[in-house]
Amino acid sequence: MIRSAILGASGYVGGELLRLLSRHPGIAATRLFGDSKAGQKLGAVHPHIGGAAAALEVERFTPDALDGIDLVFAALPHGESQKWADTILASGARLVDLGADFRLRDPDVYATWYGEAHQAPHLLDQFVYGIPELHCEAIRSARAVAAAGCYPTATILACKPLVDAGLIDPKSLIVDAASGVSGAGRGVKEGTAFNTVDGSFAAYGLLNHRHTAEMEQALGATVLFTPHLAPMTRGILATCYATAVREMAADEPLKVLRAAYANEPFVRVSDDPPATKWVSGSNGAVVTARYDPRTGRVLALGAIDNLGKGAAGQMVQCANLMFGLDEAAGLSAEGVFP
Amino acid sequence: MIRSAILGASGYVGGELLRLLSRHPGIAATRLFGDSKAGQKLGAVHPHIGGAAAALEVERFTPDALDGIDLVFAALPHGESQKWADTILASGARLVDLGADFRLRDPDVYATWYGEAHQAPHLLDQFVYGIPELHCEAIRSARAVAAAGCYPTATILACKPLVDAGLIDPKSLIVDAASGVSGAGRGVKEGTAFNTVDGSFAAYGLLNHRHTAEMEQALGATVLFTPHLAPMTRGILATCYATAVREMAADEPLKVLRAAYANEPFVRVSDDPPATKWVSGSNGAVVTARYDPRTGRVLALGAIDNLGKGAAGQMVQCANLMFGLDEAAGLSAEGVFP
Amino acid sequence: MIRSAILGASGYVGGELLRLLSRHPGIAATRLFGDSKAGQKLGAVHPHIGGAAAALEVERFTPDALDGIDLVFAALPHGESQKWADTILASGARLVDLGADFRLRDPDVYATWYGEAHQAPHLLDQFVYGIPELHCEAIRSARAVAAAGCYPTATILACKPLVDAGLIDPKSLIVDAASGVSGAGRGVKEGTAFNTVDGSFAAYGLLNHRHTAEMEQALGATVLFTPHLAPMTRGILATCYATAVREMAADEPLKVLRAAYANEPFVRVSDDPPATKWVSGSNGAVVTARYDPRTGRVLALGAIDNLGKGAAGQMVQCANLMFGLDEAAGLSAEGVFP
Amino acid sequence: MIRSAILGASGYVGGELLRLLSRHPGIAATRLFGDSKAGQKLGAVHPHIGGAAAALEVERFTPDALDGIDLVFAALPHGESQKWADTILASGARLVDLGADFRLRDPDVYATWYGEAHQAPHLLDQFVYGIPELHCEAIRSARAVAAAGCYPTATILACKPLVDAGLIDPKSLIVDAASGVSGAGRGVKEGTAFNTVDGSFAAYGLLNHRHTAEMEQALGATVLFTPHLAPMTRGILATCYATAVREMAADEPLKVLRAAYANEPFVRVSDDPPATKWVSGSNGAVVTARYDPRTGRVLALGAIDNLGKGAAGQMVQCANLMFGLDEAAGLSAEGVFP
Repeated sequence: MIRSAILGASGYVGGELLRLLSRHPGIAATRLFGDSKAGQKLGAVHPHIGGAAAALEVERFTPDALDGIDLVFAALPHGESQKWADTILASGARLVDLGADFRLRDPDVYATWYGEAHQAPHLLDQFVYGIPELHCEAIRSARAVAAAGCYPTATILACKPLVDAGLIDPKSLIVDAASGVSGAGRGVKEGTAFNTVDGSFAAYGLLNHRHTAEMEQALGATVLFTPHLAPMTRGILATCYATAVREMAADEPLKVLRAAYANEPFVRVSDDPPATKWVSGSNGAVVTARYDPRTGRVLALGAIDNLGKGAAGQMVQCANLMFGLDEAAGLSAEGVFP
Repeated sequence: MIRSAILGASGYVGGELLRLLSRHPGIAATRLFGDSKAGQKLGAVHPHIGGAAAALEVERFTPDALDGIDLVFAALPHGESQKWADTILASGARLVDLGADFRLRDPDVYATWYGEAHQAPHLLDQFVYGIPELHCEAIRSARAVAAAGCYPTATILACKPLVDAGLIDPKSLIVDAASGVSGAGRGVKEGTAFNTVDGSFAAYGLLNHRHTAEMEQALGATVLFTPHLAPMTRGILATCYATAVREMAADEPLKVLRAAYANEPFVRVSDDPPATKWVSGSNGAVVTARYDPRTGRVLALGAIDNLGKGAAGQMVQCANLMFGLDEAAGLSAEGVFP
Repeated sequence: MIRSAILGASGYVGGELLRLLSRHPGIAATRLFGDSKAGQKLGAVHPHIGGAAAALEVERFTPDALDGIDLVFAALPHGESQKWADTILASGARLVDLGADFRLRDPDVYATWYGEAHQAPHLLDQFVYGIPELHCEAIRSARAVAAAGCYPTATILACKPLVDAGLIDPKSLIVDAASGVSGAGRGVKEGTAFNTVDGSFAAYGLLNHRHTAEMEQALGATVLFTPHLAPMTRGILATCYATAVREMAADEPLKVLRAAYANEPFVRVSDDPPATKWVSGSNGAVVTARYDPRTGRVLALGAIDNLGKGAAGQMVQCANLMFGLDEAAGLSAEGVFP
Repeated sequence: MIRSAILGASGYVGGELLRLLSRHPGIAATRLFGDSKAGQKLGAVHPHIGGAAAALEVERFTPDALDGIDLVFAALPHGESQKWADTILASGARLVDLGADFRLRDPDVYATWYGEAHQAPHLLDQFVYGIPELHCEAIRSARAVAAAGCYPTATILACKPLVDAGLIDPKSLIVDAASGVSGAGRGVKEGTAFNTVDGSFAAYGLLNHRHTAEMEQALGATVLFTPHLAPMTRGILATCYATAVREMAADEPLKVLRAAYANEPFVRVSDDPPATKWVSGSNGAVVTARYDPRTGRVLALGAIDNLGKGAAGQMVQCANLMFGLDEAAGLSAEGVFP
């Protein structure tokens, strides 16, 4: 059994990791760190965790806590894993980091979008960008993975094959996406209060959401990205628009997606536009695309669960590859539906 | 008191009209027609209607039923008001029609998008397109108004001043919008069942939603429109993207909107992106816009209640103008919040 | 025009009062007090408020601020209006208080349930308990009204006529009720975060919710009350169980309710169990009841909007009576449906 | 691998069974029957099913279709499994039936509550009532199990130990419960449309819901049961009231529950009132109870996922026991949270 530690065990991604690992055949959640709730029982922090695990205590992280740990899952606010990555890697443990810290290759781009200098640029080369469908081999041999963000995962899965096939102009990309509220994290604020969100739909982060940079890097694109908050807990749908480089059959983009994901256990290519609920609670993704002859554009859509394929599921999938396990161990592609 | 008849009284728009007219100082809901529920008590059809109105009976429509009626509100499936418009106008009553039948000026465009020939093209000239903020004077003197659709209203309010001011290229317009489920009408189907929609977000009608033609006509634009279904009952948010015709200050589009709506009681211009709930249950609209120097695009957003400003509220607002009443009679701009 | 001041203008009840008064023909919201948001523009505090009102500033309350004020609406946390009631009444203004402070006749009962001594027991006699359907005449002549709480209103409207008619044993009452999340107020906490509540249903306040005392006083009953939080913003349904004092026809309780509310504009008696949405956004209430011969019990149900008939609507209704206005001025009984 | 057939594969319970079996180590979903969708691909019927399973076809049931089948899961409308149980058992397959047909021991009670004579009373003796926590040994050796209904499961888990311990008077039981909308099944109707349910809470089935009989039988009780529909897809909370037989410590009922479920992997005993979301998407249950000295009553609560522990999860748990597998195989107790 691979012994893992979770940094950020008291957040939503931490809770989802705990749920996934509770039935994982090869990876155990051995140590649980979460500074803000250190000393509390896991059952009090995560009401969905029962049984023996509920009696475990959330610990304050200290470097020597990694003794005997094979794998660290980090689900921390951005800026935090930069501080600890050296220590973690020096301990011999491998690292799957969900923060934004090691996703962007160029520390200047990081500084531009995050408004502060990167603290550990010397480590950037050690991280593989974590979307297993695109970087499977690199992840298998990686010591450190920067798991992709939620919006970028939905967008990149829908668009990358179309860019690679030369169907769309990557400089023309518009990404209009909606997320469930869990994507905003567990911090309590009026903007994510039930009364604010229920029965409401709104855009936020106009023109400057930080995931833009990650999409642009992964796709070699210029992206205008507008995130929206939808009145649901989980799920992301990215609706992507790009100028087609030429006329084509309406279903040519769909065929490109089918070819790209023919052997992927977690990505389904659909004729119809997907609903986020199809993959809610799972590590699945659904993508579709089509060409619009009226406007000369390609429309591509990707749906995931932001806490599944957009966070904890993807982290586990990466870890499975890093440790030579079955890529799908502990994961499912079937959403909790209805 | 102006005596009005409602055609389609048993649908959601009919129910909202009844709610609005129940406190309208100048227009009464005198006759209520709805073929599918003819013979039923209003209280059984609309559970929010109590008091004396609940005992009224929904009637089957017959032309002579318009005796003594000053005004007809028609909220029928498309294709239906074409059949009755001649009769209604011949009765002397004025008509506010919410169907798509008389919105498109060109019967060939109607045939292209609706897949059938128009039955009453000779009447098209008598209808004014019903967005009071844009066509106030024409509506005042109109005998017949084709009230704008829900998605077009949100889109046109956000974009029309920007087109008119020459800030954006109307051929580049992308409209990505989300609607509450009441926009799909009262017909019962699996796609709008609670279990299907709750916790889910999905696109539909890719590339060919019929409201595209209405947006294109009103804006003189080419539009790629993607509607989405959001897990909420009411509300539409239209997020619109267009290529800017030149560089400009980030807030220049916002200033154009402020100038356009300075004297409008129902349109608010907001610095921040609006949430649909701000205007839920009301006739209000909120719009905003900004220029993105990174991508050279203008982003414009419009939020309404699809049953309010997108349907029944707009119909009442048009009727108020047609009959020389206070434009805001029976209406409010304040949403039911939270 | 009656000049009113709102204490607690920045909370949800304050926001609903503002919405109602914005179209009230006889009462204006003249001064707006809210200490925690003092100095902010109303439009920033309440996103549903637009127009000229949005530019008004929330003020810090001072006693001399009541100069020229005819009426004070107080929507404050319990314990607060005790401090100000003397001042308010001395100013000559009448007072409609939504807090719990003056609802319980006996200061000892207040101390028992609220855990602190009452600060102004000498004023208790001046307050009329504010459910207009039960105390209409007393409210008309009152200088001060303690508007009933949300759970008690739903419960009392359903049960009081049955107690008065001697059909049920008031010592046997069980009240099982569910509320929308706005009933928990605007304070931000994890228990009312969207992610906590969405898709979830839970009981809270087991055995000791403070509204128990108010129900017991109004009904002369012993009540076991269990409130629940439902994943919706507005609405309360109270499902009430009591032992019947004798065998009776199944519809005898229903007939008693019909007789009691025959002339009430805001209470509807329904054969069928009501849904909260029938009266959402309104001042309406729906009640029903029936006798169960199998178990010898009477079942009674009451549905209201907790912010409407359970708070702001009821406050306005009381004020209308106090000032001799039409009882229904500015109010509607029709819910925002769907 | 145990080869199972699902009757009713196209319903919600069928879909949940498919999801659970997709990762079950010992039971395969070999044949899928569903008359109303016979001939359709599974992927078209259940949008959460992808991969190879999506290409399977739903079949029309015929008796010879059970050749080589070890186990039948039946999730059919009541009245249907009565017709097929003889055939199924004669085939040698074991049967886990979720319908109401074989839950009630007494065919007269069945006739009273279901309004029709039982078609196969001779088979009633062969069925064990399927709540594994109460009838584990009998289920292990059973050829046929009548899995308990959703409301009864939540109620019985909360109350049975209290009845058995003699703490409560079973003739005094009141069960007030709320369910998510998936409990109403997949049939499309206005009462379960999104627009009807969203933002609304309502009681239904007053005094005569059929699950009453099942509760009464399992608890030896007289039950007044009121079900409610909550605006959520999954989850049941049963709030149960009974007269205590004597005074006791407030936590005595809780201690009884703790003792009863000390070794059960799927039932958690909680100090705090549970939220349905704690176990959403899982086979878990959470119960709590306390004594109220003010009113002399015991309050007991039980929360489950109606499609999990209230349906498909419980069916799999029963099947695991019947075939000597790990009771928890393919199941989890951790809810999908948030």
